[in-house]
Amino acid sequence: MEVKFVPTPLSNRTVPYYFQIVTLLRRKIEEGDLPSGLKLPNELELAKLFGVSRVPVRRALSMLEADGLLVPQRGRGTFVADVPPAPNYYVLSGTIEDYLSRNLRGTLRLLSMEKIPAPRVVADFFGIETGETISLFRRIRAVNGVPYSYVMNYVLLATVAHFSIKDLNELNVVNLFAKCLGVSLQKITQAIEARSADSDIAAQLSIDVASPVMCVETFFRSHRGSPEALSRIFYRGDRHKYLLELTRKN
Amino acid sequence: MEVKFVPTPLSNRTVPYYFQIVTLLRRKIEEGDLPSGLKLPNELELAKLFGVSRVPVRRALSMLEADGLLVPQRGRGTFVADVPPAPNYYVLSGTIEDYLSRNLRGTLRLLSMEKIPAPRVVADFFGIETGETISLFRRIRAVNGVPYSYVMNYVLLATVAHFSIKDLNELNVVNLFAKCLGVSLQKITQAIEARSADSDIAAQLSIDVASPVMCVETFFRSHRGSPEALSRIFYRGDRHKYLLELTRKN
Repeated sequence: MEVKFVPTPLSNRTVPYYFQIVTLLRRKIEEGDLPSGLKLPNELELAKLFGVSRVPVRRALSMLEADGLLVPQRGRGTFVADVPPAPNYYVLSGTIEDYLSRNLRGTLRLLSMEKIPAPRVVADFFGIETGETISLFRRIRAVNGVPYSYVMNYVLLATVAHFSIKDLNELNVVNLFAKCLGVSLQKITQAIEARSADSDIAAQLSIDVASPVMCVETFFRSHRGSPEALSRIFYRGDRHKYLLELTRKN
Repeated sequence: MEVKFVPTPLSNRTVPYYFQIVTLLRRKIEEGDLPSGLKLPNELELAKLFGVSRVPVRRALSMLEADGLLVPQRGRGTFVADVPPAPNYYVLSGTIEDYLSRNLRGTLRLLSMEKIPAPRVVADFFGIETGETISLFRRIRAVNGVPYSYVMNYVLLATVAHFSIKDLNELNVVNLFAKCLGVSLQKITQAIEARSADSDIAAQLSIDVASPVMCVETFFRSHRGSPEALSRIFYRGDRHKYLLELTRKN
């Protein structure tokens, strides 16, 4: 398996470079784009790739080492750590009907469609090899003309062949599967967390780099639990909130 | 009603001053500490209060104006806007028993107890006047010695009198009310959103300024719906996540 490190361009100094590098590498490591055991390019190479001096690169690497995401090995280089520390998950449940009724607001717009090597998290979900080719389409949902969410959808190549450009500009994942494939999605799991916007997310959502975003990783399964689609959705933090109502049992 | 503007000290340049000022003022406006219609100090006064030049102050004010949180009035000054734009709330439900079983991890530590003028959101919840005196105690929850959440608890003065320092160092809100007042809390509502850490939150949670935090505003009510406590909880974004499982109805 060949993993190339392709950095996203940094934003023009809105936020210090080291902080942008930390945010970007953390996302790539946690999402498996930079898999466990991968040797990072050295400081000088990273500085060239990001187009910055070695100072912010060194600072970013030492912060990620302190967080346990990178491991320096003397004389050998810096490696992606085995397992990032596990967070506490608070488990909630709901219905797909409710999800859909709230998810139909605004308008979708297709930004791109590509074939890419599957990152680890995506490959694990679909049960394919990391790096195997998979389809990625990126979309923006806007409400009243203002960007609301930036959505990356991953599906198998055999699946994407059934979607027309028109459908991709109009339908959410559940409706795409229903209309284009006749498949009813039966189980949706969402992992919800707070993130800071990196330069790509910030540009797409018209917010500043390092502004808060709600990151929602969504796993779609059909009736036998078969994996059908994975979406990574970034919502503007000021526009997307949850309200949790707790009552006593009975 | 007299509202004084007391700025939190900015952090020492980890993140640009203008961004820290935006984050701080946004929080104060959204939480009602700076109420609608309040006239802000002018640029020069704000620059002095924050201990910075006018450049970052001017940039922060124009960003908050663009977001509709501040309104400039020619020749009169800059005012806090009437109503911040409403976000989309995604409503979920759960049980208090489940919440408690997950909320008992780690150890609490009392940081401070104060009497303060109630901010608008707090006053509205308790049905008192904005600015009336209320009790605020701030606590840190640590798990395995690492800060996990920074909690601000607001209760009425008559309530806090029943809590001992020992209890405040040990018990969560539900257990404080059960043990010290014999009151069973029956309804808990949480508003959950992504935020960027300001300098105070960052210091308490041992994270960088502008790192992601999950902000959970929690409203506690007893059996007749009577307001008993309000907590504002900031969780480290890398340690606190939600998992939402959606299935079809029936």
